[in-house]
Amino acid sequence: MAHFSIEERDSKEMDVSRQSSQIYPEELPYVHKVGVPPRQNIFKEITATLKETFFPDDPLRQFKGQSGSKKFMLGLESIFPILEWGRDYNLTKFKGDLISGLTIASLSIPQGIGYAKLANLAPQYGLYSSFVPPLVYSVLGSSRDIAIGPVAVVSLLMGTMLRNQINPITNPVEYTQLAFTATFFAGVTQAILGFFRLGFLIDFLSHATIVGYMGGAAITIGLQQLKGFMGIVNFTPNSDIVSVMRSVFAAAPHGVGYIAKGINPSSANQIYFSGKYLVSGIQIGVVAGMIALTESIAIGRTFASVNDYQLDGNREMLALGVMNIAGSLTSCYVTTGSFSRSAVNFMAGCKTSVSNIVMSVIVLLVLEFITPVFMYTPSAVLSSIIISAVITLIDIEAAILIWKIDKVDFIACIGAFIGVVFDSVEIGLLIAVCISFAKILLQVTRPRTAILGNIPRTTVFRNIQQYPEATKVPGVLTVRVDSAIYFSNSNYVRERILRYLTDEEEQLKAKNQPRIQSLIIEMSPVVDIDTSGIHSLEDLHRSLKKRNIQLVIANPGTTVMEKLYTSKFTELIGYENIFLTVKDAMATCAPKMVEEA
Amino acid sequence: MAHFSIEERDSKEMDVSRQSSQIYPEELPYVHKVGVPPRQNIFKEITATLKETFFPDDPLRQFKGQSGSKKFMLGLESIFPILEWGRDYNLTKFKGDLISGLTIASLSIPQGIGYAKLANLAPQYGLYSSFVPPLVYSVLGSSRDIAIGPVAVVSLLMGTMLRNQINPITNPVEYTQLAFTATFFAGVTQAILGFFRLGFLIDFLSHATIVGYMGGAAITIGLQQLKGFMGIVNFTPNSDIVSVMRSVFAAAPHGVGYIAKGINPSSANQIYFSGKYLVSGIQIGVVAGMIALTESIAIGRTFASVNDYQLDGNREMLALGVMNIAGSLTSCYVTTGSFSRSAVNFMAGCKTSVSNIVMSVIVLLVLEFITPVFMYTPSAVLSSIIISAVITLIDIEAAILIWKIDKVDFIACIGAFIGVVFDSVEIGLLIAVCISFAKILLQVTRPRTAILGNIPRTTVFRNIQQYPEATKVPGVLTVRVDSAIYFSNSNYVRERILRYLTDEEEQLKAKNQPRIQSLIIEMSPVVDIDTSGIHSLEDLHRSLKKRNIQLVIANPGTTVMEKLYTSKFTELIGYENIFLTVKDAMATCAPKMVEEA
Repeated sequence: MAHFSIEERDSKEMDVSRQSSQIYPEELPYVHKVGVPPRQNIFKEITATLKETFFPDDPLRQFKGQSGSKKFMLGLESIFPILEWGRDYNLTKFKGDLISGLTIASLSIPQGIGYAKLANLAPQYGLYSSFVPPLVYSVLGSSRDIAIGPVAVVSLLMGTMLRNQINPITNPVEYTQLAFTATFFAGVTQAILGFFRLGFLIDFLSHATIVGYMGGAAITIGLQQLKGFMGIVNFTPNSDIVSVMRSVFAAAPHGVGYIAKGINPSSANQIYFSGKYLVSGIQIGVVAGMIALTESIAIGRTFASVNDYQLDGNREMLALGVMNIAGSLTSCYVTTGSFSRSAVNFMAGCKTSVSNIVMSVIVLLVLEFITPVFMYTPSAVLSSIIISAVITLIDIEAAILIWKIDKVDFIACIGAFIGVVFDSVEIGLLIAVCISFAKILLQVTRPRTAILGNIPRTTVFRNIQQYPEATKVPGVLTVRVDSAIYFSNSNYVRERILRYLTDEEEQLKAKNQPRIQSLIIEMSPVVDIDTSGIHSLEDLHRSLKKRNIQLVIANPGTTVMEKLYTSKFTELIGYENIFLTVKDAMATCAPKMVEEA
Repeated sequence: MAHFSIEERDSKEMDVSRQSSQIYPEELPYVHKVGVPPRQNIFKEITATLKETFFPDDPLRQFKGQSGSKKFMLGLESIFPILEWGRDYNLTKFKGDLISGLTIASLSIPQGIGYAKLANLAPQYGLYSSFVPPLVYSVLGSSRDIAIGPVAVVSLLMGTMLRNQINPITNPVEYTQLAFTATFFAGVTQAILGFFRLGFLIDFLSHATIVGYMGGAAITIGLQQLKGFMGIVNFTPNSDIVSVMRSVFAAAPHGVGYIAKGINPSSANQIYFSGKYLVSGIQIGVVAGMIALTESIAIGRTFASVNDYQLDGNREMLALGVMNIAGSLTSCYVTTGSFSRSAVNFMAGCKTSVSNIVMSVIVLLVLEFITPVFMYTPSAVLSSIIISAVITLIDIEAAILIWKIDKVDFIACIGAFIGVVFDSVEIGLLIAVCISFAKILLQVTRPRTAILGNIPRTTVFRNIQQYPEATKVPGVLTVRVDSAIYFSNSNYVRERILRYLTDEEEQLKAKNQPRIQSLIIEMSPVVDIDTSGIHSLEDLHRSLKKRNIQLVIANPGTTVMEKLYTSKFTELIGYENIFLTVKDAMATCAPKMVEEA
């Protein structure tokens, strides 16, 4: 078959444009043909793909067309956002930040002590972690509303995973050192993800996964706190529900520890940079770092959309990473943005991250002067604070909504929940991520297809199942494929279309109606096609030819059209059989029918 | 926000339908609203999904509405297709089958001997494998054109993988036993895939993967045959190119073996059902079984589409599986449909699988009477037969076409090629499958998006990059998302849309043109959405509200509309802001603009 030149195709277009028809309410004075997009340079194509993958937010946009010194200032500001908002800082803003800072401080002190307990660390580490990281974040972070400090979910995660390596009761020193090691690598993980702009990886933890994970974690936390609530010592090192329940009902009461006075001591020389705990420190750090990011980025995005400012997720990760590395060197464990305190911070009227500085100062005062007072906090009180806090993490309503919206999402959610409750955090997350991916693959392997009909009094063609009033045009079968056509589904798509055709022909035969003469494939949702897909279309064309049915394509997108053209499929079926809309295709296919019928 | 009842929504539709406008060439006498599909029963939904996944070809269709005895006959026929075509068999058909059977026999005898050599087996096993399996297939198989027997690719695969376990020169007996074991489990794998209707798994080996794999395998085969061609003994047990080249240039010549006389002896007691070779037998069998299926199913599909008959892939797999199990018990190694001989079979005018029976009879005669003659076939001649056969497997044109059509496909192809040439068949296939899946995931993680414009003199809106003549409507930004909106891309999609908006607003400001008042998302390609996706749309709506821009949805599909409705997103943005087409949406959005401008 000859290769069409652009001129030939243009003259063909003109021929087709004259084939207008009168069977539709609207005239077709002009049939616009499908554009064969200009072929892109391969280098440009790859650059564009890489840019969309790693720089979807165009972080260098603000530098465009600026002078050298301005570029330097903008660069500094992008590293230290405090320079940007600091210029416009005033007393009114400070008032808001002061009040909100005092408020979150009043929460963060008992919570810090409680969460340190969750992580099996001495209470002062919770306070240390509420002092240095918020200070670092206030200089580097770009969210205005986030409140930094230890959080329940990460503390539980650390507590569980660290305890699998070292017993915190018999070896408290090594345990604490491993905690700093994990914190260091959590920070490194976060900074690397941010620096290499791999932030999209945390998107793989879907909403359903997080809901399931939180619920499972909350139940495990709650049950574990029963030991404090009931006064139990020598608790189980396992976090699954059977071990926890067994321990809860087979243990004895104990008292409350002493809280060290003074600000954070250095812990730089306590991190395991070699030896047998290095690998487990890295493993725990990677998981804790990812989970911490998920929480912080989710909070950051929520408040950014409420207050309508943009948050650069990757820059934020870099800030959190540096913050946790700094924390690991100053006796802190993994910190991140707290859901509950950030909400309080926002409600109390915070304007900038100065509220975090205010909170830090309060924590400093507490550390310097009044920690001994906390020695008398009863263990049962702390436990009940934690239990009441974590119970709000069990979001049954969200789970019900997920069930209603998407059954597979719900399975992923329950998978995460059961995994966390009955085995461990990693297994729970792994189950959920696998289910989520399997769903994506299934969707690409068995895509939805639909038969289209004409919606009365319009020139629009839609799924006859969604619009029962839509009617099929005699002699024409219109099919829509709802997915890219790839190797994984190309055979299915071809067989599915042929089956539609066979069904339709049987029905028509039974009713003694005219036979199908054209098969229109509406390609709008077909965003891409590969070589297997094109082969499948060629096979389909061949089968249809045997049955004397014309294959017609409606609205192929840029990429698909380019590939159909390159593979000469457009020549095979004839460029005149490719249309911009189903309506245009119908205007050419249906008249024949009308003549013969 | 109140929950709309169906009646309320209906009355809203009526209101909207009156808001027609005159700014488009065509009148809008009637605005059709997007249907909220009737909610499906959960049981039905799951049944439908399972049916499409495992029974996409509706294999029980022919049994519908038949009497009991007829059903029994149809059942028998579906197990033994020979009963179906056997009824209409006549002398004319037999003539075609006889000629084509004689033709493929003349090919299969030298090829069988050569391929057995490839698999490091004694030559008679190639003839045995050309006798029993074709007979079994002719009774069970449903393809009319396929020619069964040993093939180059599978023989090479067996030879390579078996040799990694046992040295064929020092331990020929154990080696042959392991070959039968692998053949048995290849058959079991095929039968299981067919019986449980998991045939779609072989679709994961894409066209690009197969092209790369074949090229790599052909080069390895070709190089290995140099030993026979040049007369080399004690060849390397490794199949990578470095070892092969080293052996080719450092070895000595040898003579030709003896071929046993008589038909297939039983090998049932030679299969390792226990012991240390069981596991490797299963591993080799699974890989060889899958590869053999790919070749056979691809051939079967090609000829079925040429002759326009349907081939049930799963039933075909069951037939091939039973055939290989039978083969493993009668001294055959893995057989499948041969590309080259099937083509010859078809060209020579075969009508049914009786041509396979004719071929078997010829092979039987050869085995019984004239094998000693083949003793004098020079090794160099056999090697050159193989080399000239496998060279045709290197399909450079196909590789070039893949490069032109899809760069990632090409990387998968080259990955398979390099993997097979420099390491092993399994690694090559693994690389290609991983690249192919990564591509699917990337497409779902960073989906394409487009800004749409109105194509002049139509009411159609299309990608302004594909159709440079398309123009944007003042005050409205129309965006299309080219993928399901899932957890993996929901944040990206939201941020991408906001970035389009910011870009557009900057441009409008620079040109002093009216600002954007509505953002229309064309949802045609959005085939599904999950809870993360809906959250992202909610965030987007919130951001737009802050900027005083109305979010409008055009043409959500069945599933998406159902989920938007269940999650009350339709209430959030207002049901009146969801339209059937971009044109309808524009008719409502643009007039406001016209008044204000």
